[in-house]
Amino acid sequence: MRPYGRAHDALRDVVIETGVSPYAEGSCLIKCGNTHVLCTATVEENVPPWMRNSGKGWVTAEYGMLPRATHTRMRREASSGKQSGRTQEIQRLIGRSLRAVVDLKALGERQITLDCDVIQADGGTRTAAITGAWVALKLAINWLIEEGVLKSDPVYGQLAAVSCGVVGGTARLDLEYEEDSQAETDANFVLTVDGGIVEIQATAEDKPLPEADFAELFALARKGVAELGEIQKSVL
Amino acid sequence: MRPYGRAHDALRDVVIETGVSPYAEGSCLIKCGNTHVLCTATVEENVPPWMRNSGKGWVTAEYGMLPRATHTRMRREASSGKQSGRTQEIQRLIGRSLRAVVDLKALGERQITLDCDVIQADGGTRTAAITGAWVALKLAINWLIEEGVLKSDPVYGQLAAVSCGVVGGTARLDLEYEEDSQAETDANFVLTVDGGIVEIQATAEDKPLPEADFAELFALARKGVAELGEIQKSVL
Amino acid sequence: MRPYGRAHDALRDVVIETGVSPYAEGSCLIKCGNTHVLCTATVEENVPPWMRNSGKGWVTAEYGMLPRATHTRMRREASSGKQSGRTQEIQRLIGRSLRAVVDLKALGERQITLDCDVIQADGGTRTAAITGAWVALKLAINWLIEEGVLKSDPVYGQLAAVSCGVVGGTARLDLEYEEDSQAETDANFVLTVDGGIVEIQATAEDKPLPEADFAELFALARKGVAELGEIQKSVL
Amino acid sequence: MRPYGRAHDALRDVVIETGVSPYAEGSCLIKCGNTHVLCTATVEENVPPWMRNSGKGWVTAEYGMLPRATHTRMRREASSGKQSGRTQEIQRLIGRSLRAVVDLKALGERQITLDCDVIQADGGTRTAAITGAWVALKLAINWLIEEGVLKSDPVYGQLAAVSCGVVGGTARLDLEYEEDSQAETDANFVLTVDGGIVEIQATAEDKPLPEADFAELFALARKGVAELGEIQKSVL
Amino acid sequence: MRPYGRAHDALRDVVIETGVSPYAEGSCLIKCGNTHVLCTATVEENVPPWMRNSGKGWVTAEYGMLPRATHTRMRREASSGKQSGRTQEIQRLIGRSLRAVVDLKALGERQITLDCDVIQADGGTRTAAITGAWVALKLAINWLIEEGVLKSDPVYGQLAAVSCGVVGGTARLDLEYEEDSQAETDANFVLTVDGGIVEIQATAEDKPLPEADFAELFALARKGVAELGEIQKSVL
Amino acid sequence: MRPYGRAHDALRDVVIETGVSPYAEGSCLIKCGNTHVLCTATVEENVPPWMRNSGKGWVTAEYGMLPRATHTRMRREASSGKQSGRTQEIQRLIGRSLRAVVDLKALGERQITLDCDVIQADGGTRTAAITGAWVALKLAINWLIEEGVLKSDPVYGQLAAVSCGVVGGTARLDLEYEEDSQAETDANFVLTVDGGIVEIQATAEDKPLPEADFAELFALARKGVAELGEIQKSVL
Repeated sequence: MRPYGRAHDALRDVVIETGVSPYAEGSCLIKCGNTHVLCTATVEENVPPWMRNSGKGWVTAEYGMLPRATHTRMRREASSGKQSGRTQEIQRLIGRSLRAVVDLKALGERQITLDCDVIQADGGTRTAAITGAWVALKLAINWLIEEGVLKSDPVYGQLAAVSCGVVGGTARLDLEYEEDSQAETDANFVLTVDGGIVEIQATAEDKPLPEADFAELFALARKGVAELGEIQKSVL
Repeated sequence: MRPYGRAHDALRDVVIETGVSPYAEGSCLIKCGNTHVLCTATVEENVPPWMRNSGKGWVTAEYGMLPRATHTRMRREASSGKQSGRTQEIQRLIGRSLRAVVDLKALGERQITLDCDVIQADGGTRTAAITGAWVALKLAINWLIEEGVLKSDPVYGQLAAVSCGVVGGTARLDLEYEEDSQAETDANFVLTVDGGIVEIQATAEDKPLPEADFAELFALARKGVAELGEIQKSVL
Repeated sequence: MRPYGRAHDALRDVVIETGVSPYAEGSCLIKCGNTHVLCTATVEENVPPWMRNSGKGWVTAEYGMLPRATHTRMRREASSGKQSGRTQEIQRLIGRSLRAVVDLKALGERQITLDCDVIQADGGTRTAAITGAWVALKLAINWLIEEGVLKSDPVYGQLAAVSCGVVGGTARLDLEYEEDSQAETDANFVLTVDGGIVEIQATAEDKPLPEADFAELFALARKGVAELGEIQKSVL
Repeated sequence: MRPYGRAHDALRDVVIETGVSPYAEGSCLIKCGNTHVLCTATVEENVPPWMRNSGKGWVTAEYGMLPRATHTRMRREASSGKQSGRTQEIQRLIGRSLRAVVDLKALGERQITLDCDVIQADGGTRTAAITGAWVALKLAINWLIEEGVLKSDPVYGQLAAVSCGVVGGTARLDLEYEEDSQAETDANFVLTVDGGIVEIQATAEDKPLPEADFAELFALARKGVAELGEIQKSVL
Repeated sequence: MRPYGRAHDALRDVVIETGVSPYAEGSCLIKCGNTHVLCTATVEENVPPWMRNSGKGWVTAEYGMLPRATHTRMRREASSGKQSGRTQEIQRLIGRSLRAVVDLKALGERQITLDCDVIQADGGTRTAAITGAWVALKLAINWLIEEGVLKSDPVYGQLAAVSCGVVGGTARLDLEYEEDSQAETDANFVLTVDGGIVEIQATAEDKPLPEADFAELFALARKGVAELGEIQKSVL
Repeated sequence: MRPYGRAHDALRDVVIETGVSPYAEGSCLIKCGNTHVLCTATVEENVPPWMRNSGKGWVTAEYGMLPRATHTRMRREASSGKQSGRTQEIQRLIGRSLRAVVDLKALGERQITLDCDVIQADGGTRTAAITGAWVALKLAINWLIEEGVLKSDPVYGQLAAVSCGVVGGTARLDLEYEEDSQAETDANFVLTVDGGIVEIQATAEDKPLPEADFAELFALARKGVAELGEIQKSVL
């Protein structure tokens, strides 16, 4: 049995509140059960030095966690003087995923930075961050269109992300922390709502995973992403 | 005239929501107008190396700001690899202020860390952080008493903090960002609700401040702290 | 047509030279075409602080690239003062992959560090590093058995890794740099020679990847890993 | 009784030697009892990037302490790789204080950096640094006027700084280290010689300070700054 | 007796393989016994900022050691976040030595960077690096001449380097690690093949060295450098 | 002609003031012309971790320069976050030189740290630092003997250091900055007063140095060190 009697193929309760930041060009607070991530999109009218005069824009992301977002307090990365390998891996993943559905040429020479800050963590923070960041990105694009800066929408795909895993021999959708920490295999899927693959990261922690199990996880992820996509649509 | 027609001696609307973190031993979200600070208290059963076997506890604080808490995005300190001088100054101030009203011997050899993370900034973040951190600290102490770890309350004073300033020649209470950026003098007062001074930091930005003006700022601060103290009491 | 007239499902020439380091407990130089990675295994009779007294061992990895391993010189990470996100991501991947086929309890409280240093880079450095690191790990384990430190072999799986990608609409095995830089999708597979999944990382760079294409990449990877496994066996 | 039988409202012996550096545009060595601070002013014909083309100049400060300036050796900040929070707080205070009496527009687009290096420390290093830095600044301005670079003096106020504190229940002027380490309250006053407030930092270490005591400290500080101002004048 | 029955004035076996890097403009792998150093020369068509528009070029070097180049594993400098004092000292020495035989004006405004990476270490890594770097530099210059970028050779001297030391009271040429760690005096000589001094670093570890002993070391070094020079010539 | 009409084999005026620090166990201010270095010796009753239980003591050194010790201001190393290669090279040299004349076993398990801080720089700061550090070391040892901690003196040699160089084709003793910056060859000699070699560092900047010239520099250095030795003796 899963915590709270959840079915093996059920998402946690998901709520996306938009417009939570008074300053950001796009923002939302995404809550997947007890995992809460604040996503803000910042539009800047310049690109990184290595992209100047390329005629293209850039979409990037940064990820952080408040020190007491977790059961026990984690050291503040600003205080320890560097971002952990895990943090860098996650923020690279978020940025790369979003870029896969944006026409950077159509965006023009400007940069959109997605800040994904975890307020509370209960498993699945990176996938919640991607799902929320896509919403914040769309809101920022809407703002650019309303302001007359952009004529058309450079975002050509809708994407969301979810984790799946094998826990106690069973495939489960959307692991929370207690499950995640015991999972034999942990996989994160970033998919478009129409079934395209943007990123798959599957990791067998304990022992290699049979291919059939992987297929089962993939099917769960497609179901989860379809549902997340409906929630995203409902708030835009 | 102040923004929103506020009187020169009026605080902004202040709301303190307690128990906002599912994991922290004490927590609150303090909102002073558009300045929102999340304050969590973490209890750890050990003290820094230099205090071991002293029979005393320790209270400390860390301060951070989400990158898009401000009108324009600020660089993430975790990414730039160090905390700014401003950040360090503020977190030292918060910790020092709280320690001035705690009997560290009565706390016993344990540490309480107050994390003050600014979700939105519109002036007065350090004073809001202190006012909120005191609430989070009290909640953590209550928890320690309920758990039977502590027999009595080591916090012997109630404190709150507020900024005042001279703007356009007039003394004003609780400056918001727009006012703060034009202030001739900026002062932060950390006071106990019964009028004791815990910390005063007054800075003349433009030209030296006559002593009479300082007295006027001090009077405003006492009024503000008294009102903040009532709000603190109402949520505990 | 691929460079050098290679078939779409052919590996580059692979050579693994073992015993290249006079000091390391296990070592090899793996050459996959123009990608050359030196892998050394170091055995240390202690584990990281957080594992002490757990009765378990640890396997970890570090990855580096000589500044002129690439077409244009890259800045030395020791000189820039930090390892890039990419480097950290890769070394975490190598360590995690190897641990998935090692019984850490049977290893006992000791640590094996795999240093994977890229002498020349022409695409696929991380997968070459994993394939080579597994060989160096086995050689170090053999040494531990010969020395009488271990009674039995804690490595219960044989693994290798290979990259695949979609280039110009076609699926290809074992991309070299020129192909990799133009790939629409890039995927790295860490598999056991008997078909188990250890890690999959598939990234659509340009646009989402249809599921059928992913299946094709997976099939290529299985073929490649089987061949790499034969080469590994032949040198042990 | 105070050390050396000093009266509660007496400064330590103060000596300011000017022109101690053969290279700096202005310099002095200020000795307040056993606290010795070397202050040099460097004029550079450019301003920080964020001030360019503003038509204004900049005055800033850096603070350091030789490792064996103190009773026991302190770790060298250059070796530990960062300036402590205390160091940053102090150098920000020195720069801010000086800017409060300088017309930055009249200074023109150039920067004056005050380096305050503590050769020996016996309490009150930050206030001695401010008092000495003001002298070094004036000497550099005199040099700019003699060189014909400036027509008139952009420094419109004379300032000095002194610490006061409550020790053993009594208010005292100009604390030395032994007193400072036992003080219930510690306050630093940066004032102009004609009584204007530039910066006040009052900190109750142990328990909140009654307002009357604060007034007493303030009166002592005014007396001390007046005397320091006379010494400054005598060496210019 | 020396290890391997080597005469006190004999070099270890020296082999220099050129053209080992497929990308670098010049490269060699130098093997002095068990000390192996990979030297690559990178030509870049710009100079450091402080040399721009000087009409001169620049030659510089970086030095590194693979973590398991040594008997016991050393911490990776990229991971510890800084280059050790020893590393910096060595790379400064290599660059300075090479510049002493290059006409920087004749080189033109371009930079040549020599990366010297120690693959295996058995004493004398810095001297092997210099001897190899000179070869890599010459090969890069030859390439610039072949490409028509340079008309004539700006390298006006041929240099090599060797260590000598007093071990057990006897002067010896080209110390290996076992000897080096017991040496009373350790000296590194960078000389031109026609007897000019480029750099001498002699260090008495245990007790001051009589001048006569220094002369003996110097004579050994001249002999060693002459032989190294012949080997250099034979591979160019 | 040299500046100030100095003879080619004459030292600048040298003054060594001892006991300048009220806290350090040994201290002096050494002035060689306009080069002034403050040297303090700190005795600590423990050794670095890697020496514990070796029965031996340790002597080490740190070197720093005040930002405006030089003609133009240099960036503060504490602020830039690391010590330069030059600084590390110098402080390693100072420590190594002193250890060559100390019986570390006789010192016992304690550490003496020599802090050499350059107050003014006019060439020859590292050699002045060594000459002064030896005096501060001896004073600290005298203190340890007076305190009864040590029975006998573990310093078995007297050393001093001086720079020499070839400027405009002529060998000169004790270069000042103006000469140093034009020198064809720069050499630093650390010698005992009875002629033993502790460290020689000779660097040809422009073109290789003939051996005869080196002999001439050596002779000058011996003369200079003998004179410095007399001055050291006169102040102890």
